[in-house]
Amino acid sequence: MSTGDVIARDLRGPRATTADRWLLGQLYRRVAPAPCRFVLWDGSWAGTPDEPRATVTLCDRAALLGLAVNADVYFGEAFMRGTLRVTADDLGDALTVLFDGLRDGQAVAAPPHGSRWWRHLQAGPSLRAARSNVHRHYDLGNTFYRQWLDDELVYTCAYYETPEMSLEAAQQAKMELVCRKLQLRPGDRVIEAGCGWGALARYMARHFGVRVRAFNVSAEQIAYAREATARAGLTSQVEFVEADYRTIDEPCDVFVSVGMLEHVGFGHYEALGALMQRVLPRDRGRGLLHFIGRSTAAPLNAWIRRRIFPGAYPPTLSEVCAHVLEPHGFTVTDVENLRPHYARTLADWRRRFERAAPDVARMFDDVFVRAWRLYLAGSEASFRSGSVELFQVTFGTVSAPVPWTRHALCAPMPDRRSEPRPEAAPGAAG
Amino acid sequence: MSTGDVIARDLRGPRATTADRWLLGQLYRRVAPAPCRFVLWDGSWAGTPDEPRATVTLCDRAALLGLAVNADVYFGEAFMRGTLRVTADDLGDALTVLFDGLRDGQAVAAPPHGSRWWRHLQAGPSLRAARSNVHRHYDLGNTFYRQWLDDELVYTCAYYETPEMSLEAAQQAKMELVCRKLQLRPGDRVIEAGCGWGALARYMARHFGVRVRAFNVSAEQIAYAREATARAGLTSQVEFVEADYRTIDEPCDVFVSVGMLEHVGFGHYEALGALMQRVLPRDRGRGLLHFIGRSTAAPLNAWIRRRIFPGAYPPTLSEVCAHVLEPHGFTVTDVENLRPHYARTLADWRRRFERAAPDVARMFDDVFVRAWRLYLAGSEASFRSGSVELFQVTFGTVSAPVPWTRHALCAPMPDRRSEPRPEAAPGAAG
Repeated sequence: MSTGDVIARDLRGPRATTADRWLLGQLYRRVAPAPCRFVLWDGSWAGTPDEPRATVTLCDRAALLGLAVNADVYFGEAFMRGTLRVTADDLGDALTVLFDGLRDGQAVAAPPHGSRWWRHLQAGPSLRAARSNVHRHYDLGNTFYRQWLDDELVYTCAYYETPEMSLEAAQQAKMELVCRKLQLRPGDRVIEAGCGWGALARYMARHFGVRVRAFNVSAEQIAYAREATARAGLTSQVEFVEADYRTIDEPCDVFVSVGMLEHVGFGHYEALGALMQRVLPRDRGRGLLHFIGRSTAAPLNAWIRRRIFPGAYPPTLSEVCAHVLEPHGFTVTDVENLRPHYARTLADWRRRFERAAPDVARMFDDVFVRAWRLYLAGSEASFRSGSVELFQVTFGTVSAPVPWTRHALCAPMPDRRSEPRPEAAPGAAG
Repeated sequence: MSTGDVIARDLRGPRATTADRWLLGQLYRRVAPAPCRFVLWDGSWAGTPDEPRATVTLCDRAALLGLAVNADVYFGEAFMRGTLRVTADDLGDALTVLFDGLRDGQAVAAPPHGSRWWRHLQAGPSLRAARSNVHRHYDLGNTFYRQWLDDELVYTCAYYETPEMSLEAAQQAKMELVCRKLQLRPGDRVIEAGCGWGALARYMARHFGVRVRAFNVSAEQIAYAREATARAGLTSQVEFVEADYRTIDEPCDVFVSVGMLEHVGFGHYEALGALMQRVLPRDRGRGLLHFIGRSTAAPLNAWIRRRIFPGAYPPTLSEVCAHVLEPHGFTVTDVENLRPHYARTLADWRRRFERAAPDVARMFDDVFVRAWRLYLAGSEASFRSGSVELFQVTFGTVSAPVPWTRHALCAPMPDRRSEPRPEAAPGAAG
């Protein structure tokens, strides 16, 4: 059974040639001995002789050749077109089987030096390109995202304090965790770079009494964020600025960015660090970067860059430390790897996405649905197989005090959704 | 009042010249406006007009010139000789005042690239030099270290779960924390590189049921470790190997090193990572590196290298990630910065050291006592002012599972010192 794509027609194409079958065998060798099979249009196959946990069916020769030449791009392209189909109990499981196989078949890691020429291609977008990249992904419409995100529209990794938590509760818990790591105090001035629909900005203001200036280049997200913030009576504490993070120039006590660093581009890391150094006070500045990263430097999957996230690059921890933090007088006080939580978040998103798929297909088309299905399932599989990580890096200026223990981080998360909302404050707090 | 050195004679040297006083003013400018004073042999001074929190007295012109030319080396040399004296409520406080002043007077950090030529001088010792470096520091005699370390002779940063913890309890808590981070399970094979007097090896075996092979090149430490382990009835679980970590070649489940990386040398990081990759299982290997590090790459203080720790180098997090972990298929799962705990540990050590100072002076001499006094107080001040950090980096092979939360790390520490010791096990467990 497939919750991903169903094989809709019998396999009765022209007979595959010896060359086709040889190529197919080569494909399986890349992931062998993974418990999966590759099947051609005429039913011939290569793979495990046992019951497979995933079956990849190539419906025409173009799909086969694409996979042989550049699987990174053409797996996704053929899946989108519907000429590559995956049969499995769950598409996320199936892709995890493939990714685990790829991982275990490779030499563990790239040589340590001299082979990162491609990193310079990740220089990062200009102001204009950044706006266009963001527009392409984040301005697909609030209606679209509302169909499968949580009710606050948080589009970053959640934190499931316990495995049975709902997505909604886990997104609240993530925001609580971030606030605790930042040691927010009433009156703190917080800058948020890349604020999405503003949920974290509102959470910080409502529950920690801080003032927030939140930056985002997506017009549609900012419009939603302002409206939701007015409804919550938090306008006097939260200001949304429709501008690139590079325009930030006002002093603050705290700098936070959740899910933006992936889009900044390697070439802009030094400038981001310098910016944070400029706006944070030297004696007590603190901050947090939450980002998708890697254990070994490598470009993002080419299909994801082409179809989903143009210009994105998941950095390693050493790249962030060496370029953003260490040259600019910051001390790392805490790093947490939330990789399993992002796999779980993506599974929750995909479950909701599948329920909404008929509506999404009406809004866009079937190709769009397949692309997003693959992006969500493929991302889940990437976190499960360890090809990407989710790092939360907490830091402070060198002379800021380092927290004594993590006990405050581990205290049980409050369920603040039941707390009464504050009255709309009269007048502005600045 | 001075708990460090007392000014033993009146200041009645020859009159200082105009040039002497000018130099003195220049010295203070490096730390200004720190609340301290520099005083010359004839009583003339430069510094804060207010009540100073630290007074540095230079008893002769050689001390003044040394400080002017190369304070990194000659502050310590003159302090050792007794021609530089520090008057303050506490020597650690006094040095913190100076270090904070130096820090705040500098441009925050070194330029990010191209200025780390000196790092290549930190290539790291040969096998023979490593043995000699270790001998010089760690073979000063168990009698010496017993006078001021805790009763288990743990010579690394403790973990004060609560501020009122004793040094003994905090060292136990540190070992417990390390074991929890490593997720030890009964029967695990653990390799410990650089095991000191063996306290952690015994703790892991006794309380977590693992088998440990622990490496150390200090003959005197190994002899003590073996004896203490036999007394504890743990010989069947813990084996001490008098050899350099580079000779490790047997497979294990867990690799741990507490306080050794500082002595490995930058030039050996790749080899250490490759070694860990060789001995750890690809699907579930895990490890922990606990080390003195930096936020900004810089050599260790020259006097400490000359007199206390030849060959030592505190790396930045990016250096450890980029050279030890990332090229060898390891994922960072957790980083904790225990800087305030090392400041506290050093204060505890120094309090005990001062009580034992008369005995230590009889074992060695007054110069030795002053050198160690400065080393302990200076290290405390370095952690307090943020010029060094204490990083605990937990990692796993890429396919090893990442812990779901940190809750297990934050559970209260048991006081296991009151637990009954196990009977000496008959026969070997392997």
